[in-house]
Amino acid sequence: MTVTTTETNRQIRLKKRPVGMPAPGDFEAVASPRPAPRDGEVLRRTIYLSLDPYMRGRMSDAASYANPVNLGDVMVGHTVSQVVDSRHPNFRAGDIVTGYDGWQEYAVSDGKDLRKLDSSVPISTAIGVLGMPGMTAYVGLLDIGQPKPGETVVVSGASGAVGSIVGQLAKIKGCRAVGVAGSAEKCRHVVDELGFDACVNYKTDDLVNALRDACPKGIDVYFENVGGAVFAAVLRLLNKFARIPLCGMISEYNVTQNPGGPNLRPLLVHRAMIRGFIVSDHYDRFPAFLQEVVPLVRDGRIKYREDIVDGLDAAPWALIGLFEGRNFGKALVRVSPEDPGTG
Amino acid sequence: MTVTTTETNRQIRLKKRPVGMPAPGDFEAVASPRPAPRDGEVLRRTIYLSLDPYMRGRMSDAASYANPVNLGDVMVGHTVSQVVDSRHPNFRAGDIVTGYDGWQEYAVSDGKDLRKLDSSVPISTAIGVLGMPGMTAYVGLLDIGQPKPGETVVVSGASGAVGSIVGQLAKIKGCRAVGVAGSAEKCRHVVDELGFDACVNYKTDDLVNALRDACPKGIDVYFENVGGAVFAAVLRLLNKFARIPLCGMISEYNVTQNPGGPNLRPLLVHRAMIRGFIVSDHYDRFPAFLQEVVPLVRDGRIKYREDIVDGLDAAPWALIGLFEGRNFGKALVRVSPEDPGTG
Repeated sequence: MTVTTTETNRQIRLKKRPVGMPAPGDFEAVASPRPAPRDGEVLRRTIYLSLDPYMRGRMSDAASYANPVNLGDVMVGHTVSQVVDSRHPNFRAGDIVTGYDGWQEYAVSDGKDLRKLDSSVPISTAIGVLGMPGMTAYVGLLDIGQPKPGETVVVSGASGAVGSIVGQLAKIKGCRAVGVAGSAEKCRHVVDELGFDACVNYKTDDLVNALRDACPKGIDVYFENVGGAVFAAVLRLLNKFARIPLCGMISEYNVTQNPGGPNLRPLLVHRAMIRGFIVSDHYDRFPAFLQEVVPLVRDGRIKYREDIVDGLDAAPWALIGLFEGRNFGKALVRVSPEDPGTG
Repeated sequence: MTVTTTETNRQIRLKKRPVGMPAPGDFEAVASPRPAPRDGEVLRRTIYLSLDPYMRGRMSDAASYANPVNLGDVMVGHTVSQVVDSRHPNFRAGDIVTGYDGWQEYAVSDGKDLRKLDSSVPISTAIGVLGMPGMTAYVGLLDIGQPKPGETVVVSGASGAVGSIVGQLAKIKGCRAVGVAGSAEKCRHVVDELGFDACVNYKTDDLVNALRDACPKGIDVYFENVGGAVFAAVLRLLNKFARIPLCGMISEYNVTQNPGGPNLRPLLVHRAMIRGFIVSDHYDRFPAFLQEVVPLVRDGRIKYREDIVDGLDAAPWALIGLFEGRNFGKALVRVSPEDPGTG
């Protein structure tokens, strides 16, 4: 049993399982007692909480690759925190760590789930470009997509936390990078700021024709984040021996009817490959990822954009925004200030 | 220019491109002059012609992995033939060869396309279990599906030329082999004669429930020959890290409307892989295939069943039968007798 104090720990818990799009009423904000560390434990204060599309799956009890959040439990999520009290030899007050503390202001554990951060890059990157989303881009593009110089890589969700890194890594590897995103502003950012060769606006463009124009040599790698119409259009433009890392299908996470899918005969004709992957199967590649990508981020060769909302209570609204395409960049919640002295 | 004689060479040519299911009127039988070999050439008489689902693609001018047959040209196809006249040092009259002579009684060429057959197995096997269909099963199951002992392998078109070999190879590799076929008689054959562990009749069984009963440990490899409803049912029963070699989609070859496809989210949840393949990309594996499978056929550990029609004029009807599921075993046309003295 965890020792608690009389101080509070604001938490957001799952109250109801959503039907279709999550609604604010599916969540419940609760003032719990703040836990206190026992011998061997570490108490930390959450600074940043990452919001990610996979959270929709955890809110549902449909079969998936991970167990759902139980009703009444704190919502899960990657976090960057500061140690406020430590009775563990490896951590001391003030340390900045990343963990999986979820939607709450304070968390305590034996520290096995924590990784201390160095200070050469902003700490929020540990749950963004240098965390799970960046690692997802790295493994999916390089290990599964296996792009070769001169090939064309298309990525959907191109301005998002994963897609933005996929396209920049593709450029660094000598490929043509083409994004698909949901607004003219996002497309401009993807091309002008991130350096993609082209970006298609799936809301206004004729997808097949716009992709054909953007990919004059066809598509060799399609990094799939969204499913639906974009995927169907891409299938019509595949090159021989194309590879499709299947990372997510965000367009389908809130549907209540099975949406069917595209006809797969192009896979046969073009000897193409689709492989579904979950980044947590690939953490043996985490050291290689950090070794390659930390310097790229530090040198500004890989850029990232964050879309930060303030305060834990904004998290439900911001998560819903992910599915509505409202966010522009990596979705983060600033749960408490980096430097509590100025908060 | 090929020298011709006054004798005839019956041919079946493509007259019209089919709309939907091919019809007899899409073909035309023609009595051409029989070619004669010049220096360096080999004339042979067709004995067996193989009928295969890929031929539907060649009749169409839609984009595919191979060029279509031109209107007015002889239909293509794998053949077993006997040399009747040779002006080539490597061949002599009486040799039995396999080639790609198409739907005609006689063919002549420089011999580069021919392979002489040894006599340890029936000659028809060179275009069946020991030819392209058997090689397709071998490469698709072993190289792409990579079954491990104890895993469950499902194959559709289980009584057909490819599927029957897939299941038997799966058993030899220590897997549970489950077939899907289109009649009770075919299912009995698949289980009782070929030794599969179970077979589901897709025409009468509730696919998902019948497959679930036949695959109590889920599905690790699905060798896809048919597309459509069977594929959708299989997706619901995939195990983690399942592999799906996509060999063909015969249920869709004659549709006139794009049939859509199943939703692919199970690929993501189960980290599964689909890879389209065409056997002609993999002929570097042909020697390995023959080395492994010829002894298995010779020893009766791999069985095969042939569905032979007599006479070239029956070929259109028999090819249509492939798409209707009328054939039961490898579809062959006996164009002329093996021993012409008894013909």
